[in-house]
Amino acid sequence: MPTLSVFIDVPMIHKLEGSLLKTYKQDDYPDKLFLAYRVCMNNEGQPWVSVVVHKTRLKIAQDPSLNYEYLPMMGMKSFIQASLELLFGKHSQAIVENRVGGVHTVGDSGAFQLGAQFLKTWLKDAQVVCIISSQKEPHGLIFQDMGFTVYEYCIWDPKQLCTDSNMFLDVVEQIPRGCILVIGNIIDCKWTQSQLAKLMFTIKNKEIFPFFDIPCQGLSTGDLEEDAKILHHFVSQGFEFFCSQSLSKNFGIYDEGLGILVVATLNNQHLLCVLSQLMNHTRALWLNPPAMGARVITSILCNPALEGEWKQSLKGVVENIMLIKEKVKEKLRLLGTPGSWDHITQQTGTHGYLGLNQQVEYLIKKKHIYVPKSTRINFTCINASNIDYITQSINEAILFTKNSEKMLFPPEAYSLIGR
Amino acid sequence: MPTLSVFIDVPMIHKLEGSLLKTYKQDDYPDKLFLAYRVCMNNEGQPWVSVVVHKTRLKIAQDPSLNYEYLPMMGMKSFIQASLELLFGKHSQAIVENRVGGVHTVGDSGAFQLGAQFLKTWLKDAQVVCIISSQKEPHGLIFQDMGFTVYEYCIWDPKQLCTDSNMFLDVVEQIPRGCILVIGNIIDCKWTQSQLAKLMFTIKNKEIFPFFDIPCQGLSTGDLEEDAKILHHFVSQGFEFFCSQSLSKNFGIYDEGLGILVVATLNNQHLLCVLSQLMNHTRALWLNPPAMGARVITSILCNPALEGEWKQSLKGVVENIMLIKEKVKEKLRLLGTPGSWDHITQQTGTHGYLGLNQQVEYLIKKKHIYVPKSTRINFTCINASNIDYITQSINEAILFTKNSEKMLFPPEAYSLIGR
Repeated sequence: MPTLSVFIDVPMIHKLEGSLLKTYKQDDYPDKLFLAYRVCMNNEGQPWVSVVVHKTRLKIAQDPSLNYEYLPMMGMKSFIQASLELLFGKHSQAIVENRVGGVHTVGDSGAFQLGAQFLKTWLKDAQVVCIISSQKEPHGLIFQDMGFTVYEYCIWDPKQLCTDSNMFLDVVEQIPRGCILVIGNIIDCKWTQSQLAKLMFTIKNKEIFPFFDIPCQGLSTGDLEEDAKILHHFVSQGFEFFCSQSLSKNFGIYDEGLGILVVATLNNQHLLCVLSQLMNHTRALWLNPPAMGARVITSILCNPALEGEWKQSLKGVVENIMLIKEKVKEKLRLLGTPGSWDHITQQTGTHGYLGLNQQVEYLIKKKHIYVPKSTRINFTCINASNIDYITQSINEAILFTKNSEKMLFPPEAYSLIGR
Repeated sequence: MPTLSVFIDVPMIHKLEGSLLKTYKQDDYPDKLFLAYRVCMNNEGQPWVSVVVHKTRLKIAQDPSLNYEYLPMMGMKSFIQASLELLFGKHSQAIVENRVGGVHTVGDSGAFQLGAQFLKTWLKDAQVVCIISSQKEPHGLIFQDMGFTVYEYCIWDPKQLCTDSNMFLDVVEQIPRGCILVIGNIIDCKWTQSQLAKLMFTIKNKEIFPFFDIPCQGLSTGDLEEDAKILHHFVSQGFEFFCSQSLSKNFGIYDEGLGILVVATLNNQHLLCVLSQLMNHTRALWLNPPAMGARVITSILCNPALEGEWKQSLKGVVENIMLIKEKVKEKLRLLGTPGSWDHITQQTGTHGYLGLNQQVEYLIKKKHIYVPKSTRINFTCINASNIDYITQSINEAILFTKNSEKMLFPPEAYSLIGR
């Protein structure tokens, strides 16, 4: 008997993955390249995994004492504790005062989902979220789906070819009072003491709620403390905030849904209340987070020898990244490519802006090199086997395009992400 | 400078874990027992883990070919495929016709969260969810938090001391048209062909949307196909439904956030639309689900030798469970405990009703044996070291309480879960 489907009005969603990745996948050019992968790659074009992670996974699999029970709702306590100490420093005053805590989440998307649900419920006046444009997907969309108005901002100056702390200060001046501000990696901005003071003053004055995103601690400068120092300033000044602390990239554990939502409050009493409400949300979201990634990281961070090895491996990755960038810069120079390429080595971390414009279209269409419109690429996607093709293509693109000025369209301070 | 906390109005939630477990934890009696754990226990009082799971975890940790990349948004494809074949049978017509599919979720809570979000969006007329009372927490609460009206039903007949298919048929007659019906393990009901036909007729006629919950396939009868046969009836009759398929208990993988939301539709086109919308939700929930549990299970199910070992281990568990139940029944008989105890061995699976009433209070307060008010316990919590104490205590409780009739309060067909 013919039956009407209960799903008859459910339409297909076509835009699930980024359109750039989709187009790349559909391209059958054999030497195509995608330069915007999320993961930190090694020299063989595979996801980098710290050597100490491999060893630890094996050790865990052989451990007869593990009983594989459900983790509690807040997640693995030892993992949260170790991660907080990594983020704030083992002797952080905030940890001593018990006014920072965390909930183990399923990845950084889980942390943003959880944080957004809490803020929607408890910070009812905060209707607006401001997020850096490179994070529009997927994190901006989480807030948008939940009914927040989402603005994106950009702090890359296409003329100076650098991230500019003054641009960030302007953004903070302009965004609405009482909004939620997602603060990603602003370490390249080279903050002076007075700029930092001004930033914190404005945020406090305008009752802006900071939601930090720390996905690459240690992968910017190779120094874990240095990479988190802006956060340290905030916590030592008694700011309340959330932070999505992701340890996927700096350990090389991408597939285990690893994340933490960190909470900083004024005192322990507030912390306990907030954590209890967060756990009420996790109970409905996933009830018990996955253990594997957390186990690996806790094992490493709680073992001085392993921790030392891991820190060394991080420094090695950072050196490699700098080496790749130096080579790209050098090859462009040797090719006689117009313009300055210092900005490539001045940016730290896995990702950075190439500082191109309409050359992007040339790169994609003529050279099958897939670069986002912003030209913010993952430099670890570049390695010995493709660096010549990439640099030659950039050179070709620049010489070919009529306007040889490497200008992005003038960025608006912030713009509304379409609903 | 004194600052007002942004979290000042956030209250503590006190009722996060079940009050029974909370009271148990606070009890300092050295020989206390908790008989309502979720996990399937072994004879040593530890979570049962299939031997083949241990071997496979080790093998995976040693596999140099794994690259630990993010899983795609729908999760591990091979895991979903293997799980669908387990659920519906390798040669299922529905699989051949490509009208069943799944999304890899974070645990069964993740599956219910995902399913509930979808239904809230796309089945706007379905405002009511009916769920069996033993699943009120945590799954009923997921629907409740999302704004559904949630009714609980009970199909345990306290007089006949059995789960009664006629009670279930009554429930289905009474619940509102167009509601969502969560169908758990109803295999003990001993369905006749005509009762099953009546059930399916009523569900179809009243446009009720079935949301199956299959957390213990293989742990009821030891036969994987037998345990899923009611679902097979529904899918072969062309029903559309969701199913939370959880493989935690029957493999012994509790801590890796393992789950699947299975979708059955009328044709492949509808399936693809529904899956795309579900993935839109997972993108916001966790983006990439955790891999470890899925890897283990896929490795086992795709290897005939390992699969065979696993099936054997399941049969072993089922035999053990039956043995425990036989012993409990026998010891109660030997103690001369009033009443019939056949219902203990007539119920299949890890959990079952003891069929007590006010004896529960005696057990908790006098004997420090923690049993839920429904007296539905996890029989695998009983083992050689505690069975005498437990059976003696039950005997004592029954003799002590004035009303020796083992009657639960007459169950209402269904009742509204308080908001």
